[in-house]
Amino acid sequence: MTHRGGPEQGSTGPTHLDDGPVGSVETMVTSTQVLLAARPVGEPTDDDFRIVETDLPALAEGQVLLRTLFLSLDPYMRGRMSEAKSYAEPVALGDVMVGQTVCEVIESRSDRRAVGDVVLAYTGWQTHAVADARATRRLDPASAPVSTALGVLGMPGFTAYAGLLEIGRPQAGETVVVAAATGPVGSAVGQIARLKGARAVGIAGGAEKTRALVEEFGFDAAVDHRSPTFRADLAAATADGIDVYFENVGGHVADEVTRRLNTYARVPVCGLVADYNATEAPTGPDRLPGYMRRILTQSLTVRGFIQSEFVPTHHEAFLRDMGAWVADGSVRYREDVVDGLTNAPEAFRGMLAGRNFGKVVIKVGR
Amino acid sequence: MTHRGGPEQGSTGPTHLDDGPVGSVETMVTSTQVLLAARPVGEPTDDDFRIVETDLPALAEGQVLLRTLFLSLDPYMRGRMSEAKSYAEPVALGDVMVGQTVCEVIESRSDRRAVGDVVLAYTGWQTHAVADARATRRLDPASAPVSTALGVLGMPGFTAYAGLLEIGRPQAGETVVVAAATGPVGSAVGQIARLKGARAVGIAGGAEKTRALVEEFGFDAAVDHRSPTFRADLAAATADGIDVYFENVGGHVADEVTRRLNTYARVPVCGLVADYNATEAPTGPDRLPGYMRRILTQSLTVRGFIQSEFVPTHHEAFLRDMGAWVADGSVRYREDVVDGLTNAPEAFRGMLAGRNFGKVVIKVGR
Repeated sequence: MTHRGGPEQGSTGPTHLDDGPVGSVETMVTSTQVLLAARPVGEPTDDDFRIVETDLPALAEGQVLLRTLFLSLDPYMRGRMSEAKSYAEPVALGDVMVGQTVCEVIESRSDRRAVGDVVLAYTGWQTHAVADARATRRLDPASAPVSTALGVLGMPGFTAYAGLLEIGRPQAGETVVVAAATGPVGSAVGQIARLKGARAVGIAGGAEKTRALVEEFGFDAAVDHRSPTFRADLAAATADGIDVYFENVGGHVADEVTRRLNTYARVPVCGLVADYNATEAPTGPDRLPGYMRRILTQSLTVRGFIQSEFVPTHHEAFLRDMGAWVADGSVRYREDVVDGLTNAPEAFRGMLAGRNFGKVVIKVGR
Repeated sequence: MTHRGGPEQGSTGPTHLDDGPVGSVETMVTSTQVLLAARPVGEPTDDDFRIVETDLPALAEGQVLLRTLFLSLDPYMRGRMSEAKSYAEPVALGDVMVGQTVCEVIESRSDRRAVGDVVLAYTGWQTHAVADARATRRLDPASAPVSTALGVLGMPGFTAYAGLLEIGRPQAGETVVVAAATGPVGSAVGQIARLKGARAVGIAGGAEKTRALVEEFGFDAAVDHRSPTFRADLAAATADGIDVYFENVGGHVADEVTRRLNTYARVPVCGLVADYNATEAPTGPDRLPGYMRRILTQSLTVRGFIQSEFVPTHHEAFLRDMGAWVADGSVRYREDVVDGLTNAPEAFRGMLAGRNFGKVVIKVGR
């Protein structure tokens, strides 16, 4: 685990919950919140966010008061900052930035949750929140570090699991390629591919990351997309071509991978982070005709997906399989923990630019 | 049936076979052949073809001598004229242009085929050919006009059937859109979609074709892609969006359709005829990032295919289903018959430009 922005502190054991305030009915709580102040043009700047203090309302029946322990930062949030309609509504200007969180219940008006429970919630970029108890899921701090519910055992891990197994369908002996491979999705994709008997080739930026892919995550090969010999390196690492490309970046990395896709290759598309900060229609040449021709001549399957599509059918199996793999060490993970909610905007920019190493979580609770 | 280039002559009944030469062992036969003379730049010109007379060799054991009755012209042939590797090898310069044919056996050194048999073969642009008997399939002239083995009951019909049912998977009430809709693939796609309970919307060029789509082929709606109001017309014809886009043209038609694809829409990609004559990398703007974003946000499935992939799994069902549909009139078809092998280059150019109306076959045999 990498830890930035504060003193080293493990998140690999159960979180210490006895440091928080003692819950009592009608506590007046102030939440520090990060609001969306403006729609970013290109890379988000500090001016696109505004940090405020807001008094939270008293609890209604069925609600809980939550203290945020960890906030997840994920690339999809860039899409929510824009006005363009995507698969979800944009965040309104002046609203709290959305995001998944791990929280401690500090007050409860629900039979479902007790004070001291640690829960998964979707309360966004703030230190405290009022939520409907039914919108939370209880975590077991004894079974895994609670922050993993935002990463390898959470949405990113599930994205990797469902997209790879349901769309990618790697067969033993096939070659699976994933970019942003040290990220929470990419590292899980490669490790699950290997558990299914496939070869895993990871693409990442810089020697430190490519080394970790092989040495720490057990990828069969790793390629540095910043290297001037990237094309040749990728060819050498995928001598039998590529059968599954788990697409989460787009851009020039995708171009090079596409050239090496085998007949009947599958391309689960779960993200295009290289384009998220794009401000204008890209200039030519127009690559679409060439891409379509490759889809045709190679009989490719290109399938976009949002992990929520597969929750009804695959989430139970995911929790069982991934929980076991993480517990027995077959799947390893990295967290990039940044201390303090006010550092979230800078950490978010860094993640979009690939400066993180592993799952980015903001440690919010003291 | 439309008939061009010669006196009107029906192909809707069994072909008259008793006009051909009588087969006898060691007949010396000369074949008129259309060779690939040069690799076309853009639209193929007459100079890209060369017409020659070639003496055929005597038959070896297991071979048959064939007289071509009908030659199929298909868009994929443009790809074979280019050097670029596709899913099949290019035609070598100086070789006979490839193509599927319906032929009469005029001499046989195989127990499998008798003189007078009408067979499906792959003997290309020539009047006569020597072929391995095992590379032919016998047709029953009593069950359907033999030319349909090149169209609705042949490769184009099968392309429509397998691609639509296996990849498109139209559900009752969904909207299926196909372009080049009066062509042999498109017209079958729309009619099969309707047989499965879906709405069929066809795109074609010009009022005559769009009228025929509705009146002759029973499409629910038809849109003229040459109209200045194409975008609005398409929107009006697909008020509930588009669930399946059977892609066989590409170009600006595909752009407009893509804008209207619903979440989880399926796009079987079987051809991109709009781009087949392209001579240089298209200039910008680069449409690929926008296309990938749409795949992602709409959870699209885009799947290229070549019909041969599905022959082992679907061809028997196709012959049964499509044979019955054609026989009982649930699936109708049009043929655009051009008389004379030497007219094939001009007919081929016309087909790539959309000047044909229905399945283009060259009537070779007199």
